[in-house]
Amino acid sequence: MADLSFVPMGSAHGKFQPAGVITLTTDFGLDDPYVGTMKGVIARTAPGLNVIDLSHGVPPFRPEIGGLWLGRCYRWFASGTVHVAVVDPGVGTSRPILCLETADHLFVTPDNGLAGELIRHLDAWTATVLEPAALGLDVASTTFHGRDIFAPVGAGLAAGGIGASDVGPETRDMAPSPLPVPRLHADRIEGEVLFADRFGNVCTNIPGPAPTTWGNARASAGQHTFRLVRAYDEARSGEFVAIFNSFGLLEIALPRGNAMRDETWPPGTPVCLHEST
Amino acid sequence: MADLSFVPMGSAHGKFQPAGVITLTTDFGLDDPYVGTMKGVIARTAPGLNVIDLSHGVPPFRPEIGGLWLGRCYRWFASGTVHVAVVDPGVGTSRPILCLETADHLFVTPDNGLAGELIRHLDAWTATVLEPAALGLDVASTTFHGRDIFAPVGAGLAAGGIGASDVGPETRDMAPSPLPVPRLHADRIEGEVLFADRFGNVCTNIPGPAPTTWGNARASAGQHTFRLVRAYDEARSGEFVAIFNSFGLLEIALPRGNAMRDETWPPGTPVCLHEST
Amino acid sequence: MADLSFVPMGSAHGKFQPAGVITLTTDFGLDDPYVGTMKGVIARTAPGLNVIDLSHGVPPFRPEIGGLWLGRCYRWFASGTVHVAVVDPGVGTSRPILCLETADHLFVTPDNGLAGELIRHLDAWTATVLEPAALGLDVASTTFHGRDIFAPVGAGLAAGGIGASDVGPETRDMAPSPLPVPRLHADRIEGEVLFADRFGNVCTNIPGPAPTTWGNARASAGQHTFRLVRAYDEARSGEFVAIFNSFGLLEIALPRGNAMRDETWPPGTPVCLHEST
Repeated sequence: MADLSFVPMGSAHGKFQPAGVITLTTDFGLDDPYVGTMKGVIARTAPGLNVIDLSHGVPPFRPEIGGLWLGRCYRWFASGTVHVAVVDPGVGTSRPILCLETADHLFVTPDNGLAGELIRHLDAWTATVLEPAALGLDVASTTFHGRDIFAPVGAGLAAGGIGASDVGPETRDMAPSPLPVPRLHADRIEGEVLFADRFGNVCTNIPGPAPTTWGNARASAGQHTFRLVRAYDEARSGEFVAIFNSFGLLEIALPRGNAMRDETWPPGTPVCLHEST
Repeated sequence: MADLSFVPMGSAHGKFQPAGVITLTTDFGLDDPYVGTMKGVIARTAPGLNVIDLSHGVPPFRPEIGGLWLGRCYRWFASGTVHVAVVDPGVGTSRPILCLETADHLFVTPDNGLAGELIRHLDAWTATVLEPAALGLDVASTTFHGRDIFAPVGAGLAAGGIGASDVGPETRDMAPSPLPVPRLHADRIEGEVLFADRFGNVCTNIPGPAPTTWGNARASAGQHTFRLVRAYDEARSGEFVAIFNSFGLLEIALPRGNAMRDETWPPGTPVCLHEST
Repeated sequence: MADLSFVPMGSAHGKFQPAGVITLTTDFGLDDPYVGTMKGVIARTAPGLNVIDLSHGVPPFRPEIGGLWLGRCYRWFASGTVHVAVVDPGVGTSRPILCLETADHLFVTPDNGLAGELIRHLDAWTATVLEPAALGLDVASTTFHGRDIFAPVGAGLAAGGIGASDVGPETRDMAPSPLPVPRLHADRIEGEVLFADRFGNVCTNIPGPAPTTWGNARASAGQHTFRLVRAYDEARSGEFVAIFNSFGLLEIALPRGNAMRDETWPPGTPVCLHEST
C-alpha cells in the first residue's frame, strides 16, 4: 500500500533547484483584477508554471503578517518552490526588494518587515537585493510592482531562467520585523494577539507545544483563563478555549462560534500561557 | 463544425479511473492561508494534478450545505474527478472520514452530515472508512486534517497512487443529513429556505421542474406569493419572483436587487410551490 | 543574464492563434460554487488549459466595469489568450453573446455594455454573434449561461477546437458602454468616479498621463484639491492624493488609509484634473 507520509521539509541537500511551482501571498484581495494580472504576466513569462495562491487576504499594510504566514506555511510546499510575497505600501519608493534563498525554497519580498519576519522562520539563507533595471524591467512603474517586477522575476526564478544570484548583489541588511517575540519565563510565556482568522479564532505569537515539565497549561488574557484543549470539539458549548493551531501558535477560540465577534481582541492584547495551578 | 454538447454525466461504464483532476470544497474562505497550504501538500504529493476550487465559502459549521453543493455540481466535472470536501467542526475528534466511490466520481469527506447529504445525489456508491495511520499519515494532527489527511489522500487518489479500497474497510453506516426533504402533495410541494447566495438569491430545497400536470405554478412564503419565471429579467422592476436556479432548486429572487438584503429569509423559513389558482 | 523586459502587447502579427490560456471575469464572487462549476466544464471540454481568474468581484449588474477591467488588463496576458467575461443580468433573455477577435486576443462576452466598453480598448477587431444551438449547446438553460454556454465555448476556442468564425455570423452592432467619456479641455480634463477598489482607492475615468504642456497638475473634487503624486508613499500622513494608478487612470487615494471609507465617492461624482495654479 502506498505510504503518503511526510513531514514539513527541513533544510536540505545542497543548492536550490526550481521545481516549476510559484506561490503568491499578497494583501490585494481577490475582488479587483490585480492578482489576475500578475498571473497573466507569470503565464506569459513562463507558460508551464504551477501557480498557487497562499493567500491574498493579508491584512492591508501589515507586511509582517504576510511574513509570518509564509514563514509558518512554506514548509508544506515541495522543495524547489518559489514564493512571491507582496504586501507593499511603499511601492514606488526606494524600499529594496529582496530575494532570499535557502536550499529548498526561494522567496521574493519587499524589505519592509516582511522579509525581516520571514527570516525568523528560516534556517540558513542568503539574501540578494533585486536590481530591476539590470533585468530589463520597467523601472518607471510606481504603483504596481507586483505586476511589473515581482511577477516576472518570480516566474523567471521558478522556471530557472534566472537564479537568485542573477538578480543583484548580496546583502545582510534587512528591515526588522515589528512583531514582538514572546517572553519566556520558567512558569509562563507572555505573548500577545497578532490577528484573527475567518472563523474568529484569535492567533497569538506564543509557539507550542507547552513545556513538557509543566503538569498542565492554561492560557489567560485579562481576567479570563482558558483551558488548553487538543481539538476544537473538546470545548463545552459556549466555552472559550486555548489551542495550539495549525500554524503551531497558541490561539483563543470559541468552537462553533466566533471568538473575535463575541469579545474584543485587538492586535497587541496581552495573552499568557502558564502552568495550571 | 465542432459539437460542444454535453449533459451532466450519468452513472457510467465500469470502475472509477482517476483523470488527474481534484476539486476542493471547504468553509475555510480564501483570506487565510489554509486553502493555499492544502494546495502545497497536493502539489507535493502529486505534482501534475489539475486542482479546481469548487467553493471555499460553505457557511461555517454547516457540512450539509457543502454536501448539497457538491451533490448538485459534481456532474459538471469530467469522469474520473476526485472531490475533497472539508467542512469539519469535529476535526481532531473521532468522527470518521469517508471515501465514497461511484463509477465516475470519487469523494473524500468527513462523516458529519456532509457525506449523508451527498449520497442523496449519488446513484450507486460504495463507502470506505479512511484509516490515516495505515497510510502513513500523521495521526497526531488535531486542528487541520484538510492539510494533514484530506489533501494527501485526495492527491494520492487523483493521481492513482492509491484507490478507494486502499484507504480502509467498507461501511454502510453514515451520519444522516440534517437537511429536510420537501413534502410532496398532489397540489403543492412544501419546503424551506436553505441558504442565500452572493446575489441575495434565496435557495430552497424544492427541486424543479414543477409537475407538468399543473397548469401554472407559483411560490408562496408567509403572506407573499411569487410568480414562477424562467429568466431573471422576466421580473418587473422591484418584483420578487420564484425561479428554478442553476442548482435545479426553487429560489426566491429580486432580480437586479438583493432579496436577502431587503427581506428576512433565515434558513428554515417555510416556502411552498403550488398550482396557480 | 536573462532579460525579463516586456511591455503590454500591441496589435500583432496576423491571425489569432490560441495559446491554451483562458481568463475568467465575472460578478459571481468566489463564495458560491458557480465559478468552480464553470471550471469543471472547462476542464472537461479541454483538459489541458491554463485557467486564470482575472476577477470574480465585478460589481454585480455593472457589465461595463467588467469591460473596463478586461480592456485595461488584457494586454498583460500572452498573445493567444481567450478571455471569457460574464456579467450578465439578462441571462436567459434574448441579449446576444459576442465573440470579439483581435490578432492577439479573443473575447467572449454578453452584448450588454460589457462588449461595448471593451472595444474602446481594442485596436482592430471583428465580432461574431454566438449561436449556441449551432454548436450543440443546451439552449434551454436560462439561469447560468456561464456554465452552459460561455465555459464550453471559451474552452473550445482556447483549445483551438473551434474558431471565432465558427460560432456564428459577423456583426458590427453592439450595445454601447454606459460609462462616460472624459471631456478634454485645454486646461483641464473633466471626468467622474467609476468604482473603488479593495484598498478604498477611488478610480476615475480620466486616463494618464497629464499633458506634458502643463507645468504641474492637480485634481479636484467638490471643494477639495489633491496633489498629483507618483507613488503612494509621497503622501503625507492623512493626506488624500491623486495618482495615476496601475490601470493608467486617475485615482483619489488615502495612502495607508481608505479613501472610500473616510469620504463618500459614489460612482458619478465629478472629478477634474487641471493645471496647478
